[in-house]
Amino acid sequence: MTVPFDELKSEFNRVLLSLNFRQDKAEDIAQIFAENSRDGVYTHGLNRFPTFVQYVKDGQIAPDAEPTKEGGLGSLEQWDGHFGPGILNAKFCMARAIELANENGIGCVAIKNTNHWMRGGTYGWQAAETGMIGICFTNTIANMPPWGGVDPVLGNNPLIISVPRKEGHVVLDMAISQYSIGKLNLYKSQGKELPLPGGYDKDGHLSTDAAAILESQRVLPVGFWKGSGLSLVLDLLATIFSQVRSIDAITGGGPESGLSQVFIAIKPIGTKTNELIEEIIKYTKTSRPEKDGGEVFYPGENTLRTRAKSLQEGVWVEENIWEKVRNL
Amino acid sequence: MTVPFDELKSEFNRVLLSLNFRQDKAEDIAQIFAENSRDGVYTHGLNRFPTFVQYVKDGQIAPDAEPTKEGGLGSLEQWDGHFGPGILNAKFCMARAIELANENGIGCVAIKNTNHWMRGGTYGWQAAETGMIGICFTNTIANMPPWGGVDPVLGNNPLIISVPRKEGHVVLDMAISQYSIGKLNLYKSQGKELPLPGGYDKDGHLSTDAAAILESQRVLPVGFWKGSGLSLVLDLLATIFSQVRSIDAITGGGPESGLSQVFIAIKPIGTKTNELIEEIIKYTKTSRPEKDGGEVFYPGENTLRTRAKSLQEGVWVEENIWEKVRNL
Repeated sequence: MTVPFDELKSEFNRVLLSLNFRQDKAEDIAQIFAENSRDGVYTHGLNRFPTFVQYVKDGQIAPDAEPTKEGGLGSLEQWDGHFGPGILNAKFCMARAIELANENGIGCVAIKNTNHWMRGGTYGWQAAETGMIGICFTNTIANMPPWGGVDPVLGNNPLIISVPRKEGHVVLDMAISQYSIGKLNLYKSQGKELPLPGGYDKDGHLSTDAAAILESQRVLPVGFWKGSGLSLVLDLLATIFSQVRSIDAITGGGPESGLSQVFIAIKPIGTKTNELIEEIIKYTKTSRPEKDGGEVFYPGENTLRTRAKSLQEGVWVEENIWEKVRNL
Repeated sequence: MTVPFDELKSEFNRVLLSLNFRQDKAEDIAQIFAENSRDGVYTHGLNRFPTFVQYVKDGQIAPDAEPTKEGGLGSLEQWDGHFGPGILNAKFCMARAIELANENGIGCVAIKNTNHWMRGGTYGWQAAETGMIGICFTNTIANMPPWGGVDPVLGNNPLIISVPRKEGHVVLDMAISQYSIGKLNLYKSQGKELPLPGGYDKDGHLSTDAAAILESQRVLPVGFWKGSGLSLVLDLLATIFSQVRSIDAITGGGPESGLSQVFIAIKPIGTKTNELIEEIIKYTKTSRPEKDGGEVFYPGENTLRTRAKSLQEGVWVEENIWEKVRNL
């Protein structure tokens, strides 16, 4: 079923106020959860909201926490999120990175002791909306084996890179696993086969069965050894920048919390930016489609289509989760 | 056969001096070409040297060119490489990014009008040697189709991320294609099968035959649609930062030249850096090996082994290419 965007947001807002979130914070969080569903990232919109509420009730998320600056040098700042809502901490950090980039061309803000930021793309869109290039990534609980190993000791550390563009921002939002854990759960719950192998089953065979992959915990890194290496270095960077709690410690601590995240904003400087972006997008689309009637898309292009559809026809919701939230 | 490192370097130096390179420049270029072979990146060491020499003779590489600063803001600088040797321009830019990071926490240097930097990892090692985190990437001639398309309109834009570490730096050096073009050529020349699919043959089937993939030009991006998106955004970033010549223009211009590259250095700040890095490396290695007697490696670990072996037993060279260089 579908629900109007405003109704979705207003339900989130109501629940958040009942949990004693300050009005402006409730508003910001409700907006972003609703936007995530609106843009088609259901796993980190409505579907994740009940978990968020539970974490607040369990005291794992501190509704009132405000980030404080702990250290840094010049355009590189280290903040402490004090276990506040990941969404608010992340939004704050990207805004701060943008301020630094406005002054100094580039800004990098790392935050420790934060919580899940839901859809990483949110903060890429945020940077792009201000005309900035945005780069951000997060560590996660261990959920992916390294290349050559079977036990999950790496995170699938989502990486976001966004480029502002008048006709629609380019926003790459990718987990370093071939499929995000949310995506695997979605395929599992719908009983659908993955279009391409997403990991190994427990017998060590490449598999398109999401349930078998989730069971073996052998999620595939993008590009096999390459994604394994990329995940490791992103873990190192997030941990070094924030100076706290490596993936080992995060994973040992029960439910995923105390994450580290990194936000970089870069100011496009020069008069040819728009023209060059259009040249590249146009050139990319000259590649003949593999399938009849197929098309080559840039990252973020389909988000805009989903967004337009959601605003026109209502945001798609899973009925039972929607009912659950209405009863919170 | 193998050749002592010093002999390899000295041959390169001799040839470069004969091409009228200034002594210090010849020394730097010879050192890096020799190091690339020493570290096992043969495709961008000795094997590529004759091509480099030819490009100098053809006037595509200007031996005397010095980079000049063109613009920027604060910690973000834009330079022009004036078609000088890619190795020297890249080394200069990473050194400049390190200076900026020393002053301001983070430094980002973009260069336009440069040439192939050979092994991207060189500049990651360079940053790590000074205790800095290094990130760099380059655009390339179009050599990889986007997801959903068949014509190569994206570059496989190598991405390097390095982390300084007392016991051996962590250096990720990856092309965004599953196998670099150099690696595919190596497998083709040796008639060996790729361990995992590296692209599509001309009938559109995933293939482990390097020759068939090079023929179809349908090299596989890491993680299918994800690498396709990552390549596109790296192209956008390199082009926006340098404000010149998109991949379309590079590809249209004959042999690969006039590239744009981006170099970022970040200063690790805090007292726990080493301890946290060791914690992550150690934790990663706790993953039980997939195969009996197998091992989980971090990026850069095997480079150190190859390096030690090369220094002890001599650097491996392809005999016919070595002869060719000795006769240049």
